[in-house]
Amino acid sequence: MQRVDLRLDAGWTVPIEPEGALADHALIVDGGRIVALVPAADADARYAPNERIALPGHVLLPGLVNAHTHAAMSLFRGIADDVPLRVWLEQHIWPREGRFVGPDFVYDGARLAAAEMLRGGITCCNDMYFFPDAAARAFVELGLRAMLGLAVLDFPTPYAADADGYLQRGLAVRDALKHEPGLAFSLSPHAPYTVGDAAWERIVVYARQLDLSIQTHLAETEHEVSEGRARHGRTPLARLHALGATGPGFIAIHAVHLDAADIELLSAQGCHVVHCPASNMKLGAGIAPVAELLARGVNVALGTDGAASNNRLDLFAEMRIASLLAKVATGDPSALPAQRVLGAATLAGARALGLERDIGSLAAGKFADVIAVDLSALDATPCYDPISHLVHAVGRDAVSDVWVAGRRVVSARTLTSADEASIAARARLWQERLR
Amino acid sequence: MQRVDLRLDAGWTVPIEPEGALADHALIVDGGRIVALVPAADADARYAPNERIALPGHVLLPGLVNAHTHAAMSLFRGIADDVPLRVWLEQHIWPREGRFVGPDFVYDGARLAAAEMLRGGITCCNDMYFFPDAAARAFVELGLRAMLGLAVLDFPTPYAADADGYLQRGLAVRDALKHEPGLAFSLSPHAPYTVGDAAWERIVVYARQLDLSIQTHLAETEHEVSEGRARHGRTPLARLHALGATGPGFIAIHAVHLDAADIELLSAQGCHVVHCPASNMKLGAGIAPVAELLARGVNVALGTDGAASNNRLDLFAEMRIASLLAKVATGDPSALPAQRVLGAATLAGARALGLERDIGSLAAGKFADVIAVDLSALDATPCYDPISHLVHAVGRDAVSDVWVAGRRVVSARTLTSADEASIAARARLWQERLR
Repeated sequence: MQRVDLRLDAGWTVPIEPEGALADHALIVDGGRIVALVPAADADARYAPNERIALPGHVLLPGLVNAHTHAAMSLFRGIADDVPLRVWLEQHIWPREGRFVGPDFVYDGARLAAAEMLRGGITCCNDMYFFPDAAARAFVELGLRAMLGLAVLDFPTPYAADADGYLQRGLAVRDALKHEPGLAFSLSPHAPYTVGDAAWERIVVYARQLDLSIQTHLAETEHEVSEGRARHGRTPLARLHALGATGPGFIAIHAVHLDAADIELLSAQGCHVVHCPASNMKLGAGIAPVAELLARGVNVALGTDGAASNNRLDLFAEMRIASLLAKVATGDPSALPAQRVLGAATLAGARALGLERDIGSLAAGKFADVIAVDLSALDATPCYDPISHLVHAVGRDAVSDVWVAGRRVVSARTLTSADEASIAARARLWQERLR
Repeated sequence: MQRVDLRLDAGWTVPIEPEGALADHALIVDGGRIVALVPAADADARYAPNERIALPGHVLLPGLVNAHTHAAMSLFRGIADDVPLRVWLEQHIWPREGRFVGPDFVYDGARLAAAEMLRGGITCCNDMYFFPDAAARAFVELGLRAMLGLAVLDFPTPYAADADGYLQRGLAVRDALKHEPGLAFSLSPHAPYTVGDAAWERIVVYARQLDLSIQTHLAETEHEVSEGRARHGRTPLARLHALGATGPGFIAIHAVHLDAADIELLSAQGCHVVHCPASNMKLGAGIAPVAELLARGVNVALGTDGAASNNRLDLFAEMRIASLLAKVATGDPSALPAQRVLGAATLAGARALGLERDIGSLAAGKFADVIAVDLSALDATPCYDPISHLVHAVGRDAVSDVWVAGRRVVSARTLTSADEASIAARARLWQERLR
């Protein structure tokens, strides 16, 4: 008998790899990693767990990966709806950011976001914002795994004066925190239209030298693409490709307005796309060609974007909307079925972040980033197929327990790693200032 | 001082009429009806309530009206995803209906649906299914207000043999239950393509004689419209208009594929449309032209459709999806803003059902069909605008309390009018049979 830390016995387990749902299996965890996923009877014979948790009405699955967010912007949640992206950025968000964003804002906002994400079954996020050291501190404290995007812009903000300034600050944060378990880093030029060629070229050099991914908002609006074509004579993606940015370490966020050559380029270069359907819908940006991207073999992850444009950090809602939107956009009700969209919210997210060896499925050797979803409520009854229910019937409120690297950070729907009331109280103080 | 049954003090109240959110108001209820909605200080001076409930972190609003569902089909929840409407009906739903649907099925399924709807803030539904007397019994027991659609088809089912048989059974149910408070009735020919001209003509006569609305699935798929045009030489709506069915008592459910003349006809005739975005997306049916319908003054309500094609009876999710879908379909982020979509889910639903004098807003004299939504959780923090949060930030899990005609049917997120465990147990028995 092998002594192990933890055994989780769930009514169903959805490991993502392989596809499908397993009934009455046991997930064995030791030292923060998955040891095995085996039928309950086999587990009895082989493992002596220090702790054993029975989840007979639940489904276990890998923690969700929110592949694009601006965590601290949760403090702007609902501050400006019903306006286009440009107006939203230029009249509502950027002026407030200029005035208020600093380490305290980012720390408090990232704590709020991390608490919301963990309670909703997200165990890893890909964040992109100013003062990443402050966000990192919040994520580490609450136990949320994160990739921190080191923001680069060509114009000044309270965070830095120019592209070099952003890069220097960002890389200093990475140097200070690169050995922190649970954190990863990428270079995050904001967008093709806010970062010029000279800065892009330097970013590409740093990415290659330091083996960092590059993530950027790409082709979010039609306006961006037509303006980019007019200025540069090619699509934004073609321009970035010419600058050397594309490749398996390139993460295209949004990727709504792509032509056939763009899709081919993403496929040929092994790039990743992060689909953010709710944000794209809310801002009237458009519908990303997800079915086509998948058909061409592009890895498509899912993201919420920031709470300021969503207005929730909820990958359960995002999964359902992604599936519904793909079906209506193509007229094909078999587009993006539940298993596929669960894969986008887990393993595809891990792949986009370069973390697929460590997270994204319930495979032996990976971190025990695991969530339990309660399917015993009335709104999940009857249950013919737990995979269908995860996408179409239940919401994040059905997430009962969350483990990150074997640490139980949510228990009985309550955060264990921080005090929810104090997080909310800080957010309300910011509300008074930002209003 | 006026002695009254109940006073509800909420942090915000969203009465729907007028628009906007009122801070620190009191809703006064007596004899199941709303007496007044007044500032708390005024309420202190004028009313002596037998019961007073403080909801400082909550928003009060009218109960939601689910303007289209097939309640009993909740027993089919998730039994067949990812297939087109025709295949879904002909291969998955109709064969099972033929074998299993009877009064017991409908009663158990309607109880499950009513419990789910009430817990999610829906206080009135417009149901369309076989054995409406069995559904009525479930709705009355659980305290859900309902309009029962008396189904008519031209082909035989276990419920009736032909159109006359359906009409006779349906009208007998109406005669037996027409004095039951909380119930209303309409004639529900299934669709233009399943009911022939002769039956439509009789339905129109009955509707006029008995002052009943007519509701039908209309123009749900492109196939239905093109087939209808080929067979009848006009659109399905134009055909029904020629048969005398249109008017202020005509409820067009789905109304996805409309031409300009159809929209003009709906507007000119004062017809109602029930928009079911999640079902239309899931079946790949298409996107209803909601912004155009609203611009032409058509009353647009919201419905979930049945749980078999949604897969949830959740108007909070439906509101958010309706708003997001309208924005992306038009490219206009100001389309269907939160206040408007809340109106669709409340007062517009009441108007479609002909119940606007009794429900749909928090106006004095109307029934006290009221829900309390908790905005104190992390995912609703900060809160700059409670109306935005109701649509974009929170879900039905934030509904804490529900009153129908002043009776508290949900308290602290738990149904008070029936035992949830026994409802779920019956549903699981059906699951074993239907699988």
